[in-house]
Amino acid sequence: MRSINIGIIGAGTVGSGVWELFSLNKDLIENKSGMVIKIMRIADKDNKKKKTLGIPDRVFTNSAEDVISDPDVDIVVELIGGTTDARECIIKAASNGKHIVTANKALLAKHGIEILTSVMKNEVELGFEASVGGGIPIIKTINEALIGNRITRLIGILNGTSNFILTKMTREKLGFTQALKIAQEMGFAEADPTLDISGGDARHKITILSSLAFNTMIDHDKVYMEGIDKIDIKDIQYAEEFGFVTKLLAVAELLDAGILVRVHPTLVSRDNPLAAVMWEDNAVMVHSDFLGKSMYYGKGAGAKPTASAVVADILDIAQRVINRAEYNKNRYTFFKDLPQIGFSANRTRYYFRFNVLDRPGILSRISGVLGDNNISIASVIQKETEEQYEHVPLVMLTHEAVEADVQNAISKINTFDEVEGKGIIIRVMEE
Amino acid sequence: MRSINIGIIGAGTVGSGVWELFSLNKDLIENKSGMVIKIMRIADKDNKKKKTLGIPDRVFTNSAEDVISDPDVDIVVELIGGTTDARECIIKAASNGKHIVTANKALLAKHGIEILTSVMKNEVELGFEASVGGGIPIIKTINEALIGNRITRLIGILNGTSNFILTKMTREKLGFTQALKIAQEMGFAEADPTLDISGGDARHKITILSSLAFNTMIDHDKVYMEGIDKIDIKDIQYAEEFGFVTKLLAVAELLDAGILVRVHPTLVSRDNPLAAVMWEDNAVMVHSDFLGKSMYYGKGAGAKPTASAVVADILDIAQRVINRAEYNKNRYTFFKDLPQIGFSANRTRYYFRFNVLDRPGILSRISGVLGDNNISIASVIQKETEEQYEHVPLVMLTHEAVEADVQNAISKINTFDEVEGKGIIIRVMEE
Repeated sequence: MRSINIGIIGAGTVGSGVWELFSLNKDLIENKSGMVIKIMRIADKDNKKKKTLGIPDRVFTNSAEDVISDPDVDIVVELIGGTTDARECIIKAASNGKHIVTANKALLAKHGIEILTSVMKNEVELGFEASVGGGIPIIKTINEALIGNRITRLIGILNGTSNFILTKMTREKLGFTQALKIAQEMGFAEADPTLDISGGDARHKITILSSLAFNTMIDHDKVYMEGIDKIDIKDIQYAEEFGFVTKLLAVAELLDAGILVRVHPTLVSRDNPLAAVMWEDNAVMVHSDFLGKSMYYGKGAGAKPTASAVVADILDIAQRVINRAEYNKNRYTFFKDLPQIGFSANRTRYYFRFNVLDRPGILSRISGVLGDNNISIASVIQKETEEQYEHVPLVMLTHEAVEADVQNAISKINTFDEVEGKGIIIRVMEE
Repeated sequence: MRSINIGIIGAGTVGSGVWELFSLNKDLIENKSGMVIKIMRIADKDNKKKKTLGIPDRVFTNSAEDVISDPDVDIVVELIGGTTDARECIIKAASNGKHIVTANKALLAKHGIEILTSVMKNEVELGFEASVGGGIPIIKTINEALIGNRITRLIGILNGTSNFILTKMTREKLGFTQALKIAQEMGFAEADPTLDISGGDARHKITILSSLAFNTMIDHDKVYMEGIDKIDIKDIQYAEEFGFVTKLLAVAELLDAGILVRVHPTLVSRDNPLAAVMWEDNAVMVHSDFLGKSMYYGKGAGAKPTASAVVADILDIAQRVINRAEYNKNRYTFFKDLPQIGFSANRTRYYFRFNVLDRPGILSRISGVLGDNNISIASVIQKETEEQYEHVPLVMLTHEAVEADVQNAISKINTFDEVEGKGIIIRVMEE
């Protein structure tokens, strides 16, 4: 049987998963692919990994260099994460003529152009399915299954931690802090959860996905980002009364003027399949001209799901290597140069909540300012005051409006004496 | 740019979709794939198609033979459907050394072995993504993205007509006949809807999917099948009270004794993402050892979604042809020979409804028979009698039980004087 040699850098969570997968499902892979995948080297700084995983002496090493420079290794699998050592490893491996598989979303989102340039210069393959949505085959789907489609919109639930926290808050009527604490205790949030709850992780992922879907390099730093840390359980509950579920969405859209990419909490209609994506699960909905709406759902993180994606990439590349396939530069080229639109031009429906003194005329003053800014109200709930408070929540749902107009209107409304604190703004996705 | 020539047999719904896709998205496909796909010939018996689609004279023909025997055609795309002419076309094309793309589920489900044997003998490629789930890339996912996974279970909503009718019944509290009529008026059901509502179409599809997922040839005729035509709106509504949604599911499971494949109406927990698959949409949930549960959702039929899948297959095969990839027989081999288990061994929870005379002791007699057959009741709803009826509905949900035991018990209960007509049996999927 034809065979391919791989070297793995990093025997942490994902690296261990890949080792385990090849140990357990070797027969299956060989039967389905007609190939043997040999793990030649695994590098990890921690010697304990050798024993835990039962890695033979001749395979284990402490040095990434041993993997990258081994002439017998065809594919280097980078699983150390971060953007410093990982970047160096990949660039070096590529210049040594090694094909690359990586799960490193931060690296690709921030240094994508450099990585792709290096890969193309050296005519090596790059697999990165595991960088977005864990084991969900969303990259293969965009690149291969939807190759005949013009994609117009991507909508992703791409951060499992945020989705877990929002689900917990919704189901058990908990505050954010309490739900985060439970997520941490259950292992669904890191000790320092910033990257997840700020929307940063989702931003990395939507940068990668939208670059592929729209064939243009999206600038990570220009992607609008707002996390879930300011979400109040009250708003989740009022939104439910309107028929909406609260999700952290990463959205990329092709508009007349270019591409708009954004990450923020969003109210999703209860009937949308994305509303049924619960707990730590991820999903991506793709709108495209021929297939229409399609959705890809599953585990977005964890050793085993991520290993599943890494192994699929290894097998795809192995197939090309064994077949000596002609190098397809187009796979890694962004042939379109579309402008990236700022968030202020974003157009959606909005949910607002103001805490107001229940005085005559306040609704008219607020709706006056909204009207002056081309924002039209679709429905209003004014809640009974709770006895101990002077202020009552005034909750509104608007028709489609433009972000810049909304920011203008809300700043103005926030200056009203009758309005306590700042108005809450949450974007709404209707369909 | 490298180029590949294709010939299409059948310019009906899907054929027209493929022609339109290549017309509209030519630039996109060429940029992404680095290849030019040329449609050399299109055959259709109906001359009007030439004009409607604007097909040039030199491309259009009335004869499939012209496509199959054209020495310049690399890939033959069979889109005529049926199991007679289509079968002959494919076998001939393969023996002429043409690669094949088809959307023909009935043909593959019933004559899969013959088609695969012919394809392998002639060392040509076979693409059939469009045969299951329209444009949803479920075959690519099973074959490629999940290559490292042991699949344990497939659960599909694979018939859009049935799902549309069940959604309509549920949402608008309609009877089956009325909902079917609306589906027909809206174009979601054929004039003769038998193949769809009987479960036959879903059976074709789950036969194909489960053969791939379990690497063993599933015998289509041994797959248990029960359609939606006997579903009563009452049961949909009682099921809702228990927290379930009624769906036509096609299920294939790997059990200790072998593979069990079945198609029947099933109550699905409201929290399962499959419960959110509405109207004519399709979805497949896959359980596998590394990825866990993943779901693939979208349009299961129609010209454009199906064309999307056909084109993806064409591009995949074109890539292999252009690269002169070594022929991978393993792609089309079923290397496992697992026994196919009969439905009587099936084990799930059950929903029962009996129309009973409201006499003391009847619940005890029924539960006695159930107990004798190892069926234990989880919950019961006994409805108030409607004034004009003597009988009241007795609705039960059981714990897990075996189909053979259930059939025994229900036959016995059906003989009771207090029981009117026959007891209703619907299988329940908990998770």
